[in-house]
Amino acid sequence: MSGKLYAMGVGPGASDLITVRAARRLGKLDVLYAPAGRKGGDSLALSIVREYLLPHTEIRTCHFPMSGNDSEKQAVWDEVAQQLEAEVAQGKLVGFITLGDAMLFSTWVFLLARLGRPEWLEIVPGVTSFAAIAARAALPLAMESQSLAVMSCTAPEAELEQALLTHDSVVLMKVYGRLPLVQSLLARLNLFEHAVLMAEASLPGEQCWRRLNQVAADLPLPYFSTVVVNKHWLTKE
Amino acid sequence: MSGKLYAMGVGPGASDLITVRAARRLGKLDVLYAPAGRKGGDSLALSIVREYLLPHTEIRTCHFPMSGNDSEKQAVWDEVAQQLEAEVAQGKLVGFITLGDAMLFSTWVFLLARLGRPEWLEIVPGVTSFAAIAARAALPLAMESQSLAVMSCTAPEAELEQALLTHDSVVLMKVYGRLPLVQSLLARLNLFEHAVLMAEASLPGEQCWRRLNQVAADLPLPYFSTVVVNKHWLTKE
Repeated sequence: MSGKLYAMGVGPGASDLITVRAARRLGKLDVLYAPAGRKGGDSLALSIVREYLLPHTEIRTCHFPMSGNDSEKQAVWDEVAQQLEAEVAQGKLVGFITLGDAMLFSTWVFLLARLGRPEWLEIVPGVTSFAAIAARAALPLAMESQSLAVMSCTAPEAELEQALLTHDSVVLMKVYGRLPLVQSLLARLNLFEHAVLMAEASLPGEQCWRRLNQVAADLPLPYFSTVVVNKHWLTKE
Repeated sequence: MSGKLYAMGVGPGASDLITVRAARRLGKLDVLYAPAGRKGGDSLALSIVREYLLPHTEIRTCHFPMSGNDSEKQAVWDEVAQQLEAEVAQGKLVGFITLGDAMLFSTWVFLLARLGRPEWLEIVPGVTSFAAIAARAALPLAMESQSLAVMSCTAPEAELEQALLTHDSVVLMKVYGRLPLVQSLLARLNLFEHAVLMAEASLPGEQCWRRLNQVAADLPLPYFSTVVVNKHWLTKE
């Protein structure tokens, strides 16, 4: 059996922020699985990689429900994991793509939990969204003995506050719909001048706010919006 | 003036784990600055990018002292920042490379602090070492509402312990010379079966240990050694 599965992080959004390795793997695939349906995130992963694909590569978009129904989700993950395994068993070169890095806040991990670590699996790391944000905003993440926490704003407020109190730098992912919460935390901890909010980093619609206290709490944010805080850096205009 | 400075993270070690963007920028440089002198890390950054350089690109290795002498370090950073600025002012395309991502535990940040955010600066993000480790070890970093802390083992022990208590996943960088400390923390917190130790991820000398309680505390580790802990994952052989 010479089939392979390549699980690839394809980076934050710009096509040229994928790795050379991912570009090469994409250029020899028989089948590509692209997750679909998550408020535009899906078509985004596919749009990143399209220029690297062969004309004959079959594209299978797979929809992962975001519902609270656990058994429904598990059934989909089981099914996709079985499909991937079956394609590899037929000797195919199969790709599975996720935004950012493959092992951080990625649907891929649910499939990994089902597939284990077989010989035919190769995971290709990717550039995280927050590395792209730090680069675009020229805001460092951490240096020397400093520490960085990467949090999801879906976590309890007390945990977000604790991270902001404890660490030198904090990445707050999934700000979408939770900007008032983030603003009240930054105000309470006096961190406005150390924070940036960035949406769609590295994409044509990229936006960056360096004065988060002046941003309307009901600002309609794109889905991919992240706040980065560095207590040792002033985010001047 | 058409000069540009590209500050590029060149990833964890394998040449094909740099981004397509960095590869393209490297392929048109007049001058490349490569940090040198840090227990082999330097020549590593240069060896990653060599295949992408033009024959006529001038390579300037710059040594950043690791000494505790702050004024000595500051003088070197001042000087290199001025050199970079001067080369750009001459209309050159200048590159500066760092391992991993440019904004995380990188010497580049000291130069950024001096250069500010001029028009002629572009920062290119890179794949972090811990993303490469997670991929190679098939150990996820975080998912859904979980949190990740990225710590340097040069931080106080109490901070490392707090991070291990608080976060779902923890990356412990700079394990070199501090393995006994890390082992005693993992033992105390009963985390051995959730941890991997990896050295030189993505390089030919890559090594991975999944039974950290069985690793001799005086094991001679390579400089680039990192421990990743995920409380929600068992790091089975």
